[in-house]
Amino acid sequence: MTVQAALDELHLLLGDRLSRSKSELDQHATSETYFPPAPPDAVAFPQTTEEVSALMKICARAQCPVVGWGAGTSLEGQAQAFSGGVVVDFRLMNKVLAVSAEDMDVRVQPGLTREALNEELRATGLFFPVDPGANASLGGMAMTRASGTTAVRYGTMRDNVMGLEVVLADGRVIRTGTRARKSSAGYDLTALMVGSEGTLGLVTELTLRLRGQPEAITAAVCAFDAMSGAVETVIETIQMGIPMARIEFVDAAMVSIFNKVNGASLPEGPHLMVEFHGAQAEVRAQAESFGTIAKTHGAVGFDWATRPEDRTRLWDMRHRAHWSTLAHAPGKRALVTDICVPISRLAQAVEDTAADIAKSIVTGPILGHVGDGNFHAILLFDPSAAEELAAVKALSHRMVERALAMGGTATGEHGIGIGKTAYMQAEHGEGWQVMGTLKAALDPAGILNPGKLVPRRDLGL
Amino acid sequence: MTVQAALDELHLLLGDRLSRSKSELDQHATSETYFPPAPPDAVAFPQTTEEVSALMKICARAQCPVVGWGAGTSLEGQAQAFSGGVVVDFRLMNKVLAVSAEDMDVRVQPGLTREALNEELRATGLFFPVDPGANASLGGMAMTRASGTTAVRYGTMRDNVMGLEVVLADGRVIRTGTRARKSSAGYDLTALMVGSEGTLGLVTELTLRLRGQPEAITAAVCAFDAMSGAVETVIETIQMGIPMARIEFVDAAMVSIFNKVNGASLPEGPHLMVEFHGAQAEVRAQAESFGTIAKTHGAVGFDWATRPEDRTRLWDMRHRAHWSTLAHAPGKRALVTDICVPISRLAQAVEDTAADIAKSIVTGPILGHVGDGNFHAILLFDPSAAEELAAVKALSHRMVERALAMGGTATGEHGIGIGKTAYMQAEHGEGWQVMGTLKAALDPAGILNPGKLVPRRDLGL
Repeated sequence: MTVQAALDELHLLLGDRLSRSKSELDQHATSETYFPPAPPDAVAFPQTTEEVSALMKICARAQCPVVGWGAGTSLEGQAQAFSGGVVVDFRLMNKVLAVSAEDMDVRVQPGLTREALNEELRATGLFFPVDPGANASLGGMAMTRASGTTAVRYGTMRDNVMGLEVVLADGRVIRTGTRARKSSAGYDLTALMVGSEGTLGLVTELTLRLRGQPEAITAAVCAFDAMSGAVETVIETIQMGIPMARIEFVDAAMVSIFNKVNGASLPEGPHLMVEFHGAQAEVRAQAESFGTIAKTHGAVGFDWATRPEDRTRLWDMRHRAHWSTLAHAPGKRALVTDICVPISRLAQAVEDTAADIAKSIVTGPILGHVGDGNFHAILLFDPSAAEELAAVKALSHRMVERALAMGGTATGEHGIGIGKTAYMQAEHGEGWQVMGTLKAALDPAGILNPGKLVPRRDLGL
Repeated sequence: MTVQAALDELHLLLGDRLSRSKSELDQHATSETYFPPAPPDAVAFPQTTEEVSALMKICARAQCPVVGWGAGTSLEGQAQAFSGGVVVDFRLMNKVLAVSAEDMDVRVQPGLTREALNEELRATGLFFPVDPGANASLGGMAMTRASGTTAVRYGTMRDNVMGLEVVLADGRVIRTGTRARKSSAGYDLTALMVGSEGTLGLVTELTLRLRGQPEAITAAVCAFDAMSGAVETVIETIQMGIPMARIEFVDAAMVSIFNKVNGASLPEGPHLMVEFHGAQAEVRAQAESFGTIAKTHGAVGFDWATRPEDRTRLWDMRHRAHWSTLAHAPGKRALVTDICVPISRLAQAVEDTAADIAKSIVTGPILGHVGDGNFHAILLFDPSAAEELAAVKALSHRMVERALAMGGTATGEHGIGIGKTAYMQAEHGEGWQVMGTLKAALDPAGILNPGKLVPRRDLGL
């Protein structure tokens, strides 16, 4: 069967919910990446697992590529159809299927966004804690193994997905995991699927772990003379076992953008932004302990945000760092780096990165989830200036090489897509070939998100 | 090549560290299970990863089964060589390779036991939290996805293994994971290996996450009129977000054994045993909040253990529950069940199990890690009385069916081995076939721990 014949069959299956309109193809040609647009041959909008399974069987017969699409916020080209084929957009599968307050879990469809989920949960006293900043879809977050500001306390998607329903490359539907809090019953298929970027199957349902909304929350921002003081504060806070809910580093360049774009009035220099969750007395004690540690490392200008509206302003500013940086530099685009290193190497990694950027022809602030050892540089470039794109790619390359040499990873939370396949051999060695073996076992024709994450066997990689 | 020829080659490789003595074979014929002994053809004692790799290449050529052995404490036959072949005993690979206090991680060999690790860590202020009771090897704990009393606070082996070195079925050596706290770089091979029971490879090194020894610890035991009060206390404590380090349920039968065998003087009835870790003030506040909740559900006779020696006595008694139960019933053996259910179904699951046991011809106490929804019945039987073995198997079968009907799992922490393969289809459906596909991709000849966990393709399963 040809791809064209598959599209005809898919049209019979989905009717108007299979689109080949230019505007729809263009809207699904690119996400928040620095890669060129890659429009698919068609965009499907399934409403049920059965439709996804039927779609997959048709595409399997035609060896037609299938690429999942959540909210289009992935950063490494995961949702782009570089080999053409069908993009499966889950926007119509966006329901909360069941909340169990007693078990503190929820069953959702993959197109639901994390903000929409938390809106629905508001009255229950529960919340879903993983917060990558962008209002990503939960299916996409699972497939990228996303995390963000709260991972230091609540973990990543690895820790908060209890089970999945997955449509495999041949159309079979499996359910992974259970609603029990733990299990030793065989291979952890949930963990294998989380972070697989749609290369092993399409997720059609997720069971997620929820948390109780904390009785008290307090947040603060404080300034440091030097980056090293901020990082030393993070290390000591972790070692003391103080359970931070968030601990974010922003460098002087980022603070300058916050002041200009967001109307903040922070002293220009590196800062930590922290948040504590718990009972009133605990939060107070944690904040005091943190303050004591930070001051011994030179922290000044503590600004505590205990009112919800002050906290919202603080974290909105942090979440909008990417957009604020772009707004501050009209005409520029950004390559966002994403290395993660052991905490003991974090100060060195950030300092070396800052020095590298200072020596280059481009600019970009540094910020990160330093409690995990994960940080980003938002490297700005003029898309019409080839030497600037080359410069940001070279900076990103040096960051990854440094991270791997320190025992870290090329990506803490953004994933591989096509943007980082070049580092998989260096990071995993023979393990990358094992990933290729697993992929070939579950998707022998290679129709699921081809060209992403695993070795390109067609290229002999 | 024949198995005999492989053994000759292994003798050249390992010298005296390949044993075929009857006593060594007998010692490796059985672990803490109710299955009949199954002596291997030989026992190997490698000292290095290179030796394990060379051993595996020899066994691959001869299609000779290879079964890993840690401390022999597995409960479902995981370490027994039912198809013969070579048992690889890791007792000589038992070193701590590197402790990083700043990164709070440790690199160890698989034969090291958890107690030996914590002994070595004592001076660092750090500890490894996973505690399955038995002094298991860390390699074995990873392969079984073990957990135990502290999982409610610190997670299971899934959450505490950061990376592995694994020798694959063809002798290739891979390293999974990194020393960074999180990563989105490709398939989570660490999580795929953890819980794989030696069917995908032999673990030759582990990187484990450590925690800071808490500033303060307090433990307590309290009695309830009825089991339901104890379970309601657990649910409410979890929902309040009180971070228990341990919360264990023991039924009246278990308490009676503690009083008789361990010289305790607890009121005969169901009890909860709890522990809190944290800063002094936090622990005090948590203990008070728990006490208030417990009392509203009928708790009486609170006995607080704040001195280390009192806590040690309390948890030693809990850890020895299995042996005390056997000591109390001379001539009996035990089948230990291991279901895990959503917390909301826990009271029903325990009550139905207790009623089932009461109606049967056998006896056995119930106890469990109720903060996870995981509990065990230690079902006693006379090995010479076929009807008693049949009765305990029937009880175990009904417990598993009940757990699956409740959305739970056949095994919370003991694993599948050969003891629970019969439930894999019911628990995972088509997902079990996917496990078989992954196994076949990585071990096409099926030499790694044959007959365990995955479908028996030779039997058409």
